[in-house]
Amino acid sequence: MGQPGRHPRGSEEFSRVVNFSDALFAIAMTLLVVGIEVPDLADSDSVGELADVLSDDLGSFISFVISFAVIGRYWLAHHGFFARLAAVDGGLIGINLVYLMFVAFLPFPTGLLGNFFENPLAIVVYALAVSAVSGMEVVLFRHAQRRRLFQREMPDEVFRWGVRLSLSPLIGFLVSIPLAFASTTLAVVAWFLPIPYQAFEDRRKPDDADEYL
Amino acid sequence: MGQPGRHPRGSEEFSRVVNFSDALFAIAMTLLVVGIEVPDLADSDSVGELADVLSDDLGSFISFVISFAVIGRYWLAHHGFFARLAAVDGGLIGINLVYLMFVAFLPFPTGLLGNFFENPLAIVVYALAVSAVSGMEVVLFRHAQRRRLFQREMPDEVFRWGVRLSLSPLIGFLVSIPLAFASTTLAVVAWFLPIPYQAFEDRRKPDDADEYL
Amino acid sequence: MGQPGRHPRGSEEFSRVVNFSDALFAIAMTLLVVGIEVPDLADSDSVGELADVLSDDLGSFISFVISFAVIGRYWLAHHGFFARLAAVDGGLIGINLVYLMFVAFLPFPTGLLGNFFENPLAIVVYALAVSAVSGMEVVLFRHAQRRRLFQREMPDEVFRWGVRLSLSPLIGFLVSIPLAFASTTLAVVAWFLPIPYQAFEDRRKPDDADEYL
Amino acid sequence: MGQPGRHPRGSEEFSRVVNFSDALFAIAMTLLVVGIEVPDLADSDSVGELADVLSDDLGSFISFVISFAVIGRYWLAHHGFFARLAAVDGGLIGINLVYLMFVAFLPFPTGLLGNFFENPLAIVVYALAVSAVSGMEVVLFRHAQRRRLFQREMPDEVFRWGVRLSLSPLIGFLVSIPLAFASTTLAVVAWFLPIPYQAFEDRRKPDDADEYL
Repeated sequence: MGQPGRHPRGSEEFSRVVNFSDALFAIAMTLLVVGIEVPDLADSDSVGELADVLSDDLGSFISFVISFAVIGRYWLAHHGFFARLAAVDGGLIGINLVYLMFVAFLPFPTGLLGNFFENPLAIVVYALAVSAVSGMEVVLFRHAQRRRLFQREMPDEVFRWGVRLSLSPLIGFLVSIPLAFASTTLAVVAWFLPIPYQAFEDRRKPDDADEYL
Repeated sequence: MGQPGRHPRGSEEFSRVVNFSDALFAIAMTLLVVGIEVPDLADSDSVGELADVLSDDLGSFISFVISFAVIGRYWLAHHGFFARLAAVDGGLIGINLVYLMFVAFLPFPTGLLGNFFENPLAIVVYALAVSAVSGMEVVLFRHAQRRRLFQREMPDEVFRWGVRLSLSPLIGFLVSIPLAFASTTLAVVAWFLPIPYQAFEDRRKPDDADEYL
Repeated sequence: MGQPGRHPRGSEEFSRVVNFSDALFAIAMTLLVVGIEVPDLADSDSVGELADVLSDDLGSFISFVISFAVIGRYWLAHHGFFARLAAVDGGLIGINLVYLMFVAFLPFPTGLLGNFFENPLAIVVYALAVSAVSGMEVVLFRHAQRRRLFQREMPDEVFRWGVRLSLSPLIGFLVSIPLAFASTTLAVVAWFLPIPYQAFEDRRKPDDADEYL
Repeated sequence: MGQPGRHPRGSEEFSRVVNFSDALFAIAMTLLVVGIEVPDLADSDSVGELADVLSDDLGSFISFVISFAVIGRYWLAHHGFFARLAAVDGGLIGINLVYLMFVAFLPFPTGLLGNFFENPLAIVVYALAVSAVSGMEVVLFRHAQRRRLFQREMPDEVFRWGVRLSLSPLIGFLVSIPLAFASTTLAVVAWFLPIPYQAFEDRRKPDDADEYL
């Protein structure tokens, strides 16, 4: 069976790419909770012992919330991206699969982060894994622009601004890698750098960007 | 890639929010069974030994059924809520993600409850987790009312009555928290309080509520 | 948020019940493989040792195939049932959730069967769990008939014949329960009894059944 | 409830087969990551120890990427195949379920491959499991051709060429089975043989194949 061709919005095939992506996102986000182990207790009725065990699990809870927020943010971006497409082609479907491979991988670095919150290498692996997703997001975006898959053709200025916005989470994650070896807390703080950066980019937004993005 | 805008019922984007939510609900409900461990037996052909092990698992079976019923009830409410929407906007999509985060978390407190049915803290963690879902349900409902996302504009009286109904499961769960320290069985009984309360609210239902809800 | 009302075929709400069911079926069927543990080996490169471990896992492979076939058969029946519906109502959605609870539970008895293929109690638990799914199938079918949810109203004779067909897997499973204590192999053979029974029913099929079923 | 009949493209029932397949593919692909265990560390803050453990996991990472690529390629072929269908019938739905059973099974041989990358038997089991998926793909393709389910009737020459293309991954996997006992690395290299073969077939492509495939 050959390569799929170009499938317009509204076709079963367009929907299928979207539904498949959503199922994969939903599973990756729900699997995160599987990483939080239900503890064993010496005295199963002891409130104090269960409280101790749960507070030891604090790293796991934090990494569950961070990862759900991170993957949820990518899902929002994926939703917004497909909302602007007029069609998908074989290339986009293939790139989307590679993108989803990195999304499907995220429960593993999330598990590392939950267990070894103060291990610099756990921070680095997590930051690299998430950066790969952001990188693939840009590849998707460029492909759609080059193959004119958007519903409205996007001016170059608006496209470049959109790419900078897509890359902004990368800044935080890449900056956090060297920082992790000094302080893992500082490294996690760096993950929030994109928020002020996005505010800065917002003021530089091309006048007509809202019509396309 | 930017924030999604307003997407009317019937668009691929409206469907996508619904399908993504359904996939996440379905996974959270199916993962509940993974929490019930298949036992190890000294004599794998012994009926008596397997019967003992299965009756020790009774707490796990009960918490599976309770949690499936609880999440299933939220799914029904989510289904009924979206059935009344004319459109989704970026805010609703974001709130829905936070709501789903609490749904995706439920297999963990379910596992706790299954293993430590008589531990008051397991009851408390479960009650808090489920209350968070009910709380987010009200946030979804208010957002839809404020942004006029419903197919038919809802009179304030009907809206307030709907909010009280959405909050009713919260009563049972919050009442159960102090009760858990006296008796975990009593606490679980308190979870059924919303049923008589809903019957009471049903008699106070605004005359025209059925047209909107 | 209240109870959902009646939703015709073609509405987002009708599709949602179907998609949610499909996601749950797909997860239950895929989770079956998680029950087959990847073994530990003393010498990880040894062909002989891996072959031994895999042949010990034979029961797990057989129960994976049986359960995939069993759940797949229910999915086919669910697909065929919904294909005949003109609408879903709140009652059908609720009954469908209870039906899906039993489907979601199946990976657990499948795991039991895989580990304790010669334990009569494992056979009994499996047979009861599957019988519950067949029982709920009939409840779904009756509800649809009573509330006139079918696209074409079904004559009573055809309806009763359809119920007998739906119940036929139950025969095999219920007969296998006492048999399991004599021989587990015989019990599993009994699960195939519905096949000749269905051939017998096929000859008694009402003349106009094909138009409705 | 009886066997489903013929359902044209655009019906709820056609979509359902597609959505169910996609959910199952997405879960099988996401479960692959569950096979990579989060390690235990003696010193949870030690970069060196975590690095050692992660490099021991290298086989798991490689088998995750290979399996994601393999299942992703089958999903692409499934997407392309259904894009050409005008309808599904009961036979196709049944064959599709058997096909999906082999897809759902793949996380198990992937786990074997990840843990025992240099065990010839792990290679053989993997190659056989993937060959079964390719084999079922051809069965799907033949059924659709015989029952005239394609949107455009396909000339025999084009059909035979499509079958050869579908079977090409089988070559690599079957060749790798004897090779595995000489060298597992060589066996894995053999899995890439279909790429030059497909280039060869591409030059023999019937002139009008692009109009049908």
